[in-house]
Amino acid sequence: MSTEFEVARLSSADADFEERLDALLAWESVSDTRVQHSVDEIIAAVRQQGDAALLEYTRRFDRLDAGSMAELSLGSQRLAEAFERIDSQQREALEVAAQRVREYHQRQKPTSWQYAEADGTVLGQQVTPLDRAGIYVPGGKAAYPSSVLMNALPAHVAGVGEIVMTVPTPGGVINDLVLAAAHVAGVERVFTIGGAQAVAAMAYGTESVPRVDKIVGPGNIFVATAKRAVFGQVGIDMIAGPSEILVVSDGSTDPDWLAMDLFSQAEHDEDAQAILVSWDEAHLDAVQDAMQRLLPTLEREPIARASIAARGALIACRDQAEAIELVNRIAPEHLELSVGNPEELLPMVRHAGAIFMGRYTSEALGDYCAGPNHVLPTSGTARFSSPLGVYDFQKRSSIIHCTAESASQLGKTASVLARGESLTAHARSAEYRMRD
Amino acid sequence: MSTEFEVARLSSADADFEERLDALLAWESVSDTRVQHSVDEIIAAVRQQGDAALLEYTRRFDRLDAGSMAELSLGSQRLAEAFERIDSQQREALEVAAQRVREYHQRQKPTSWQYAEADGTVLGQQVTPLDRAGIYVPGGKAAYPSSVLMNALPAHVAGVGEIVMTVPTPGGVINDLVLAAAHVAGVERVFTIGGAQAVAAMAYGTESVPRVDKIVGPGNIFVATAKRAVFGQVGIDMIAGPSEILVVSDGSTDPDWLAMDLFSQAEHDEDAQAILVSWDEAHLDAVQDAMQRLLPTLEREPIARASIAARGALIACRDQAEAIELVNRIAPEHLELSVGNPEELLPMVRHAGAIFMGRYTSEALGDYCAGPNHVLPTSGTARFSSPLGVYDFQKRSSIIHCTAESASQLGKTASVLARGESLTAHARSAEYRMRD
Repeated sequence: MSTEFEVARLSSADADFEERLDALLAWESVSDTRVQHSVDEIIAAVRQQGDAALLEYTRRFDRLDAGSMAELSLGSQRLAEAFERIDSQQREALEVAAQRVREYHQRQKPTSWQYAEADGTVLGQQVTPLDRAGIYVPGGKAAYPSSVLMNALPAHVAGVGEIVMTVPTPGGVINDLVLAAAHVAGVERVFTIGGAQAVAAMAYGTESVPRVDKIVGPGNIFVATAKRAVFGQVGIDMIAGPSEILVVSDGSTDPDWLAMDLFSQAEHDEDAQAILVSWDEAHLDAVQDAMQRLLPTLEREPIARASIAARGALIACRDQAEAIELVNRIAPEHLELSVGNPEELLPMVRHAGAIFMGRYTSEALGDYCAGPNHVLPTSGTARFSSPLGVYDFQKRSSIIHCTAESASQLGKTASVLARGESLTAHARSAEYRMRD
Repeated sequence: MSTEFEVARLSSADADFEERLDALLAWESVSDTRVQHSVDEIIAAVRQQGDAALLEYTRRFDRLDAGSMAELSLGSQRLAEAFERIDSQQREALEVAAQRVREYHQRQKPTSWQYAEADGTVLGQQVTPLDRAGIYVPGGKAAYPSSVLMNALPAHVAGVGEIVMTVPTPGGVINDLVLAAAHVAGVERVFTIGGAQAVAAMAYGTESVPRVDKIVGPGNIFVATAKRAVFGQVGIDMIAGPSEILVVSDGSTDPDWLAMDLFSQAEHDEDAQAILVSWDEAHLDAVQDAMQRLLPTLEREPIARASIAARGALIACRDQAEAIELVNRIAPEHLELSVGNPEELLPMVRHAGAIFMGRYTSEALGDYCAGPNHVLPTSGTARFSSPLGVYDFQKRSSIIHCTAESASQLGKTASVLARGESLTAHARSAEYRMRD
């Protein structure tokens, strides 16, 4: 029966454990040829026809018949109005969250540096912000004000010159909470467009939408495909897969708390993944019971149920060391170390987007207001990528300043290596600055 | 006549300047459907058949008939032998260059940090290296030992667990300088494979080639297309366009020096771009004369001539301020500030990969041995990206550690925002930890 509670139980002692774990973790976003073709067409149209293409696609895909882009543009005044319109408790929560996120991200700001070598050569690195960033915000059910904060605030802290945002408003329905968050996060202009056409507009610019230097923010398969296509023309953030959590419990955290932590991930969508690892089998049973009991009480019960059935798991492992091995193998987006000694485990964690330490730090706190970013590497990409941060909205330039003497000295090495590569104009350009 | 010297002369005062500049800078790498299709097929074959596919493609594309992957693998012993075999001057130059590059990159190492807030909440960021990095090195004419140093050393400094390298050896011809550079740079294993098949092997792993976490290094259109395709499965560096230099001269640098600096870029390939900007028209004439005189003396004259004719330019501008405006608009990979006061201009440079300060700092020094990386953002991507660096081989994990008290306090904000997004399991997971 479809309402029967289902969750996979695995044990690292099982002969087929590796195989089952691989199957559980397998995820590949499929961008089929049809999507690819459609996205290519949309990008080409926006590049050629600019605003006219945006109006046409918005009419077609968002059922919104605008006569000009002015009707699809919201200035800072409109964002401030939205902020005034939402209820005071939400206003305060947004401000508290924004303040905390801002303070954390301030700590990420790198500084430019230079140093002089003994012979007078000065080397260094100059850090500068992007001129303009574009935030893509999905419309409809996935329009999250917290995402606006998390995407725009690092850009703001980085010193980005201008932050623009696009958010589709299918049928013209505008989410005031989203606009209020944009106001709080320093967004200057919002365009109520979405899909591949919004990505194309920000990547190449149109008469109304300014070209940005980097596009960040989540989106559906059309948005993800478009971001991949414009990568290089502009910078992009990671292409996100479904959200996931891995909880490691030592058996002493309240099973209800853990069940709800798993559900908080599972309620996102059917593809979301929630996994609990423990070396205490009885504890896994207790969490399973709690899940079974609490599931029917969830507002988003059907989604959470489907997600847990398809991609959730309770995994029994040998001991704490093996749990950490699993962490590093899975490289989870969110990792809860629901244990008494999280500080001891922390240095052994090599791959994870965000680490929630101890029994009290639920992922939800990090999703909204603890301070660190909630845009995190999914699907094992924490092996090689980082949370969205200030560093995503800045870039570095190398600085090299030779004196006449040091250019002469370095020229010798450059000349030998350039000639070894048969790049003799390189060699000669260095040799011109050599003395003797 | 094709041997007539040709270089575009532009002036910012011309009515059609903007248009001509846009045309000059326009660059788009074209990955046609045929390449895309072929790359998709190769990736699928390597994923399904592993080593067998690598052997088959190497036979087909590199005319190299190996019976097993063992014949296409070189261990650290073989790399050390290559190092002993090259001439002593080259050995010394490689070591000097490696030492300087290592020292510069040491300065880029970020540190993990944590801080405690008044209520006991600990927030932080843990920095960890990648487990394994893969360096793609092109074969044939573009096999540059300096590229091996520049790609592998930042990984080594970052503390990457293992560095593997692929370099195609068409017809079985091995470049000892390249292997010697790999030895110096801390590469552990080399596979003599190339093309999309090498990228696929490193991205997914085969029986012999270990899966890596990030692939860096330049390559032809097949390699670039394959990197774009596996992006997400592994990390990749930027997809590089042709190399470019922008020189700003105040008129007092020897025209022969500047001509050779421009040629050092132009000799790379026909698509390379070399541009000189000055507010001194007579100086531009002098450099043009020097170019005309020196061009026939170049070993790679036909390439440099074609590059200068197709994409080179001497641009007259109004003054220093306008020159800097052009710099920021072009966002060059290499910027030479061949002026008497480079320190004054530096803070105004917003976008450039590497900045070569003053008359003595030729780009060639930075290409080989000054210390900073020579893998730099091309085609204007310095607007949003950075030189390859230690930061490309490390990633960050956010740390959040709440106390019972701070979880209770933060839970209030999280609960309001989560309910505003209708994510009630998020809200309840935070509320469980609230007191009162």
